[in-house]
Amino acid sequence: MITPPSSLRRSERSRRATLQAALDLCTEKGYGRVTIEAIAARAGVSKKTIYRWWPSKGAVLLEAFTDALVDATPFVDTGDIGADLRTHVAGAVKLLTVPPFGPAYAGILSELHHDDVLAQALKDQLVDPRVEEAVARLRSAQDQGQIPPGANLPLAVEMLYGPVYYRHVLRKPVQDEETIAALVAHVLRSLGSPGY
Amino acid sequence: MITPPSSLRRSERSRRATLQAALDLCTEKGYGRVTIEAIAARAGVSKKTIYRWWPSKGAVLLEAFTDALVDATPFVDTGDIGADLRTHVAGAVKLLTVPPFGPAYAGILSELHHDDVLAQALKDQLVDPRVEEAVARLRSAQDQGQIPPGANLPLAVEMLYGPVYYRHVLRKPVQDEETIAALVAHVLRSLGSPGY
Repeated sequence: MITPPSSLRRSERSRRATLQAALDLCTEKGYGRVTIEAIAARAGVSKKTIYRWWPSKGAVLLEAFTDALVDATPFVDTGDIGADLRTHVAGAVKLLTVPPFGPAYAGILSELHHDDVLAQALKDQLVDPRVEEAVARLRSAQDQGQIPPGANLPLAVEMLYGPVYYRHVLRKPVQDEETIAALVAHVLRSLGSPGY
Repeated sequence: MITPPSSLRRSERSRRATLQAALDLCTEKGYGRVTIEAIAARAGVSKKTIYRWWPSKGAVLLEAFTDALVDATPFVDTGDIGADLRTHVAGAVKLLTVPPFGPAYAGILSELHHDDVLAQALKDQLVDPRVEEAVARLRSAQDQGQIPPGANLPLAVEMLYGPVYYRHVLRKPVQDEETIAALVAHVLRSLGSPGY
């Protein structure tokens, strides 16, 4: 078995230290004042090491946010698509209320319109995989007869996530449990799900 | 009739010149490089005049964007709520594809998380009035029997606007006519509208 030389492998310890340092600095100083220098100093790694793995502080925070989002929003399958979508959306909404994740994600989104590399990374690392998983969960509900065949599943995903983004970027109050339940029920009804 | 002294009235000519200068600079240089100095020079007004009426370049561009949005997305009432919502959403989507409006709005949104004054202005000048008008249009459809009584109209507005924001902030391709029609049909079906 061939292992790459250690200089080419990203140490998991360094990776975690870097992500945690970036999140801590984001909490303390706000997204705008986080720098690669400060992340490196806090994490006890060199700037060179950080730049070897991430092109920008936005990319560091994107990876930290994605890790947290994946943990907070599992696509469980209890056999009840309504309950599982409520759990999923509530997980995302809750994460956005926990500093520094909400402000960090707002900071990442704010850089997208002038940072094409970050925009591509967000698409490849966060948005596309999450949408794919969401569609897969809806498809398994379809297989179980909870969503009619032929339903527009990608549109359903946009209708679920859209209002979360809408409130987040406009800094509106986040959705409470009741509002999330109403959203999920409306989306399922729009697909023609029996019982909604 | 008492008129305020001219120094306290905002000249409509100066206002329009300022807004147009801000939009032109946004097209030429991108949102990030627009400055109050450059807007003043281009519009032929003093910086002092601009700061008398707007606290920041974001506020100038917000007013310019809001004027354009109001023009582009009238709440018509042809008696067919589906057709009118398609027209409305398509107007907003189209505006976001026209430089400098899409990038200008992305720039404004990107400042919200560190500019409380701009966030409040966006809420007061753009979001709340537009949501109110949208709910009013849905309510008139309700009066005409096209939407059942008791339907959750504010949620419907979020389901319509949410996906537009979702695509805009994530820099996804904008919705085409067919996708907008599917969205509107799903939202109306979710409300229990007859015929959807």
